Amino acid sequence: MHAEPNDGTALGADSAAVATLSDSELTELEAQWRAANYLTVGQIYLMANPLLREPLRPEHVKPRLLGHWGTSPALNLVYTHLNRVIKARDLDAICIWGPGHGGPAVLAGSWLDGSYTQTYPDITRDEAGMVRLFRQFSFPGGVPSHVAPETPGSIHEGGELGYSLSHAYGAALDNPDLLVTCVIGDGEAETGPLAASWHSNKFLDPVHDGAVLPILQLNGYKIANPTVLARLPEQELDELLRGYGHHPLHVTGSDPHAVHRAMAHTMDRALDMIAAIQRSAREEHAIDRPRWPMIVLRTPKGWTGPREVDGVPVEGTWRAHQVPLAEVRDNPGHLRQLEGWMRSYRPEELFDEHGRPREQVLACLPQGERRLGANPHANGGLFTRELPVPPLEKYAVEVDKPGTNLHEPTRVLGDLLEQVMEDTAERRDFRIVGPDETASNRLQAVYKATGKAWEAEVLPTDEHLVRGGRVMEILSEHTCQGWSEGYLLTGRHALFSCYEAFIHIVDSMVNQHIKWLRTTRRLPWRAPIPSLNYLLTSHVWRQDHNGFSHQDPGFVDHVLNKSPEAVRVYMPPDTNTLLATADHVLRSRDYVNVVVAGKQPCFDWLTLDEALGHCARGAGIWDWAGTEDGTREPDVVLACAGDVPTQEALAAADLLRRHLPDLAVRVVNVVDIARLLPAEEHPHGMPDSEYDALFTRDKPVIFAYHGYPWLIHRLAYRRAGHPHLHVRGYKEEGTTTTPFDMVVRNDLDRYRLVMDVIDRVPGLAVRAAAVRQEMADTRTRHHSWIREHGVDLPEVADWTWPH
Amino acid sequence: MHAEPNDGTALGADSAAVATLSDSELTELEAQWRAANYLTVGQIYLMANPLLREPLRPEHVKPRLLGHWGTSPALNLVYTHLNRVIKARDLDAICIWGPGHGGPAVLAGSWLDGSYTQTYPDITRDEAGMVRLFRQFSFPGGVPSHVAPETPGSIHEGGELGYSLSHAYGAALDNPDLLVTCVIGDGEAETGPLAASWHSNKFLDPVHDGAVLPILQLNGYKIANPTVLARLPEQELDELLRGYGHHPLHVTGSDPHAVHRAMAHTMDRALDMIAAIQRSAREEHAIDRPRWPMIVLRTPKGWTGPREVDGVPVEGTWRAHQVPLAEVRDNPGHLRQLEGWMRSYRPEELFDEHGRPREQVLACLPQGERRLGANPHANGGLFTRELPVPPLEKYAVEVDKPGTNLHEPTRVLGDLLEQVMEDTAERRDFRIVGPDETASNRLQAVYKATGKAWEAEVLPTDEHLVRGGRVMEILSEHTCQGWSEGYLLTGRHALFSCYEAFIHIVDSMVNQHIKWLRTTRRLPWRAPIPSLNYLLTSHVWRQDHNGFSHQDPGFVDHVLNKSPEAVRVYMPPDTNTLLATADHVLRSRDYVNVVVAGKQPCFDWLTLDEALGHCARGAGIWDWAGTEDGTREPDVVLACAGDVPTQEALAAADLLRRHLPDLAVRVVNVVDIARLLPAEEHPHGMPDSEYDALFTRDKPVIFAYHGYPWLIHRLAYRRAGHPHLHVRGYKEEGTTTTPFDMVVRNDLDRYRLVMDVIDRVPGLAVRAAAVRQEMADTRTRHHSWIREHGVDLPEVADWTWPH
Repeated sequence: MHAEPNDGTALGADSAAVATLSDSELTELEAQWRAANYLTVGQIYLMANPLLREPLRPEHVKPRLLGHWGTSPALNLVYTHLNRVIKARDLDAICIWGPGHGGPAVLAGSWLDGSYTQTYPDITRDEAGMVRLFRQFSFPGGVPSHVAPETPGSIHEGGELGYSLSHAYGAALDNPDLLVTCVIGDGEAETGPLAASWHSNKFLDPVHDGAVLPILQLNGYKIANPTVLARLPEQELDELLRGYGHHPLHVTGSDPHAVHRAMAHTMDRALDMIAAIQRSAREEHAIDRPRWPMIVLRTPKGWTGPREVDGVPVEGTWRAHQVPLAEVRDNPGHLRQLEGWMRSYRPEELFDEHGRPREQVLACLPQGERRLGANPHANGGLFTRELPVPPLEKYAVEVDKPGTNLHEPTRVLGDLLEQVMEDTAERRDFRIVGPDETASNRLQAVYKATGKAWEAEVLPTDEHLVRGGRVMEILSEHTCQGWSEGYLLTGRHALFSCYEAFIHIVDSMVNQHIKWLRTTRRLPWRAPIPSLNYLLTSHVWRQDHNGFSHQDPGFVDHVLNKSPEAVRVYMPPDTNTLLATADHVLRSRDYVNVVVAGKQPCFDWLTLDEALGHCARGAGIWDWAGTEDGTREPDVVLACAGDVPTQEALAAADLLRRHLPDLAVRVVNVVDIARLLPAEEHPHGMPDSEYDALFTRDKPVIFAYHGYPWLIHRLAYRRAGHPHLHVRGYKEEGTTTTPFDMVVRNDLDRYRLVMDVIDRVPGLAVRAAAVRQEMADTRTRHHSWIREHGVDLPEVADWTWPH
Repeated sequence: MHAEPNDGTALGADSAAVATLSDSELTELEAQWRAANYLTVGQIYLMANPLLREPLRPEHVKPRLLGHWGTSPALNLVYTHLNRVIKARDLDAICIWGPGHGGPAVLAGSWLDGSYTQTYPDITRDEAGMVRLFRQFSFPGGVPSHVAPETPGSIHEGGELGYSLSHAYGAALDNPDLLVTCVIGDGEAETGPLAASWHSNKFLDPVHDGAVLPILQLNGYKIANPTVLARLPEQELDELLRGYGHHPLHVTGSDPHAVHRAMAHTMDRALDMIAAIQRSAREEHAIDRPRWPMIVLRTPKGWTGPREVDGVPVEGTWRAHQVPLAEVRDNPGHLRQLEGWMRSYRPEELFDEHGRPREQVLACLPQGERRLGANPHANGGLFTRELPVPPLEKYAVEVDKPGTNLHEPTRVLGDLLEQVMEDTAERRDFRIVGPDETASNRLQAVYKATGKAWEAEVLPTDEHLVRGGRVMEILSEHTCQGWSEGYLLTGRHALFSCYEAFIHIVDSMVNQHIKWLRTTRRLPWRAPIPSLNYLLTSHVWRQDHNGFSHQDPGFVDHVLNKSPEAVRVYMPPDTNTLLATADHVLRSRDYVNVVVAGKQPCFDWLTLDEALGHCARGAGIWDWAGTEDGTREPDVVLACAGDVPTQEALAAADLLRRHLPDLAVRVVNVVDIARLLPAEEHPHGMPDSEYDALFTRDKPVIFAYHGYPWLIHRLAYRRAGHPHLHVRGYKEEGTTTTPFDMVVRNDLDRYRLVMDVIDRVPGLAVRAAAVRQEMADTRTRHHSWIREHGVDLPEVADWTWPH
């Protein structure tokens, strides 16, 4: 292979690279790249003798060889060439390393530019530091094998694949002076999330946003297979990338000098094109959607590594994926081959007698915050400003008497968000993201303050489509999540609103984000970033249009499996509690906040003051709803969490008040679900004394819960009162039906709750047998009515509390 | 807009459609389409007066108007034109309806072709049946609003978007005579899973597999936004689709006659191209990757519906998405407009006085099993044959004494799967699917019997790439899942092997598949299909290379939230139990089976006979491992589930035997996790008597569990002995480290388990204080050793049971 830069407009043309590099620049770049490759191999293999001052012996080699060599030389090439252009053009740039399992490459780059030592002073830029750098890599108590939160300059964990490009776009939004380079591996490119995220360029505004420069790295192989994109004819690949809206520039080769020249030339071309696009949009007010450049970098997997091992080809094949020489401690041939491989980089030319990089190696490096390992955008919390959430009083709904008026909680929240949008119009550090559902979720008031980002064609009938709008809608939860994460990780604020059931689409992404937060919270140098805030609405109980496929409340279960220090779950039962919750989560840092709230008309229960107090406690007794007299423990606790369960529990309390007036009923509402956990299990967990004071130690508790009922048991199983806890919730009985039929099907309805009370309060079964029968008959009556008329009986639709 | 078929080779050329339709054919197609549109509107709106024999009155209209009109006319168009070509060419064809929220369209098609009445005899093809068809739609106790399991001819729920094309490919694999048409909405096309699945054409073999004909339906809008693909310049869209490897054929228009002509012409062209590709591959043995045709169908959203409502445009905009006229019962203007809309289809021309479709409407319909609503491939269980799983004896490992030999469980399973592959070489009804991990998961023996499907370029260094190979690898869990589902739903067998952590990527897809199974199990006409079998390996405890991002055992928690009738979870602790488990799941029907098993060397504990017995019971006492004397209840139960926890629990039992020989220890191993549930909660749940006999009612139980410990509590909280249950498992403490350090970090190690026993057995704390201290000291010693040497101490690496 020879290097072949290509402008992509006519394949094969322009293949004689325009040499933009002087010979001395080439020498410097090549030295830097060799040094990075040397340091990469050293991290994978060595725990002593880092400069090969003596012949390599087995005891210099780590006992467990872990790491990914295959992708690393290309990452080193990109790091090196980014250094050149950052310095030459004084660029403000970060890089998203999609093939982030090449951790040692990025660590090598950071050690060379000095940012590693700045972050971790004991890893000095000399021989003593080098041996520590080598030893710590993938070593117990050391650093992970992937690009990770611990890696300076990174906002992207290199573990699960698919999210690099959406992270890059998220970082570029509202950062007009930032260049976000994004290396995409050809393995990663096969994933769905990555494939979808190419179209992000229809949402990036060249005026208000920065630039994203994708570099598609085709090394041809995954773990054990060729990659799809690497095996497309170049013409077909080019069509695909043009179809994604890009102008592809090709760099292909295996001869280092030729590739360096081609890469330098192509980077310059791409940056010139970006500059021209931005100038045209910003100064000449061009409104055509730009065709942004991208680079296709085709180099061998495991480039400059062993060509063959034990008689089979390695360089340029999938066998170079991890550790090419696997038996170095036991196989003298492998040991010799490793030493030869490392010496092929001529370390003596690269490092001085103290192990410090020589001047030539450092010549092309940028300084200070321009360094990739030190750019503050990659430690985005440094930029975070408090979000100007307006005083809630203006948006709160009046509540003279609980359960009298109805409001759509998310619609009222939309009014508040409109104000936040307006108050951040200059700062541009707040975005609302969602899969085509902002209006469906009734947040459309925000369109009074901003529009939906859209750079593609606009027709006269369209509404709210605006270049640079700060609502982002694409029918890809993955892309929404990736954009949000990239935006948050660079220090800005976001709200992701989504249908409850389909947030499971990003289960795996949120796993990784929580893992990121769990780790960064333990790194003192990482500044806290705004929380990832989910508003889950169009929830399980109100899928009147869509039915069973749209009914799933299990995302809460999923996130509650993860590190408790980073996870919060809220289920505000009415409009004012949603406002109070939103105010809290929008101001918070370093959490994943899951807020489940309805968009359908919902009774107002609490005044704003009450809501603020209730949300601050996270769970509390609603005195006005119960029938305790305060002199003794209640006979039964009706607990509830979520808007629909709260309505049913209060309706049940009302029925009990009327039918069994001497029964002492306590109503407890839970907003902050983690409060149910023991205090030692979660920062919000309540101590047993508090739990017992709310729920009692021995009285029956009938808990009407929004989601899968066993979640409440999983949270509360250690409590003294747990044997008396009986939970109703969604048990996967769904279809297209009426709202009340849904709660009946899942035994969460008010009549069923009353029957549960009668069944569980000692002695009541006999005394209240007639009431129980009446409840059962009423359920049957509702069932028949609904089947016949297709709507709920007015008595449940129009019910208010109390009669 | 005018209709404009286009061969795609030169945009804009060939725009004068070649008229392949006679006028009478056009009239018939048009009548069929009008009838389908009429029936679609009727389902959304009417509960009486279905033929408009009298002027429409409010009481004829349903009280709740639910459904999705926008996508339906185009689905009706495709259904109509598929009918034509199926009949004309005697095609064996099914259709995947990606925009499946257009449920009423597909129901209309099935009612017209008679398959609906055949499936549901009370919905007759006359006026009485029509009114029932209308009324049941989205009505409580009726049928869902989407294409659903209840819909004849469907293998694809129309709820969550993104999976239509991978389902289509799965259905086409190994069905060489089948045509799978797939309608992809432009909303769905924005999702990641759909975007990735375009590349499935690199895995479809024109010799052994059938054909997939994608029809990209561009109606331009989602719920509230334009779609990305509809707003690309046609040239750019064309490049994208060519980059996906297709030959796009365009049909664009809003004039019904012109579109009918263009669609007929284009369908013929596409089918001719498919026939030519298949002939060339099958008869002339062509080996070039074919460029399969596809159709881009660009028609207005809500086509033929109200142009304007209340002064705003509806047809051709996002406002046509659901119910265009929303206030029909209350607004006389809307009522009149609805009546005019319905009468515009001229129902009197379409249906006779009995409400039966007239001859003209039925003229183009195929008969019998050729009908889209009656094709048996869409009720794939009809085709299912028992998988020839060979006798296990040949593969079982010898176990003279437990804990003496080591095997890699998945490698041995690979030998068995090789035989299954070989024995299905002719039948071609078994596939192994995974994201580039079949060999990494050590199943590579299967390559002796088949190869990896690959139709793209092959290089000399490649291994095991074979046209028509039955191992499928693409780095997209979504595509793997979609292929598997499509293959299973058409009645064949599959195994999906995946890294444990990343199976969360398909959480949302498996939700939908379980929902599908839960529903089809209740439909007597649906034949059972082979189970979806997951082999989750490279699990949380052995991510030596990859660390924290690859550590997540929570998929089990996720699936156990779903309908218990369709979910099974197995954690075989050694090689023979894995074989026994595999044998069971590969023969099963209508389940999602999750098998978690290790690929690393693992002690053999049970002989094959013992393994079969243990797996049949699902949980049992391992007498040989404990120190009970059989005369009284044990002092403590050491329970375990999963390979690594079992090893640690047995090592703990060994330590207790040596240090506290008079302690009566029982060891219980659980393979079938759902056995821990109460019998009334899951078909595999055990009665309390059995649970108590295994775990006791009041003795401490120390449970070493593979995943998140609280899952065990959530399953067992109702048991009498639950207050004495103490579970150890993964608690999100991970990184790149040694295997033993991982269990120590999560308090699952043998020494910690011994300490737990001492802490919880009454009276032991004092008597065994010295032992406890020794355990604590030993943990510290391990910790220091690992930090210093980077490997585990030989005493844990080489331990066998018992000493």
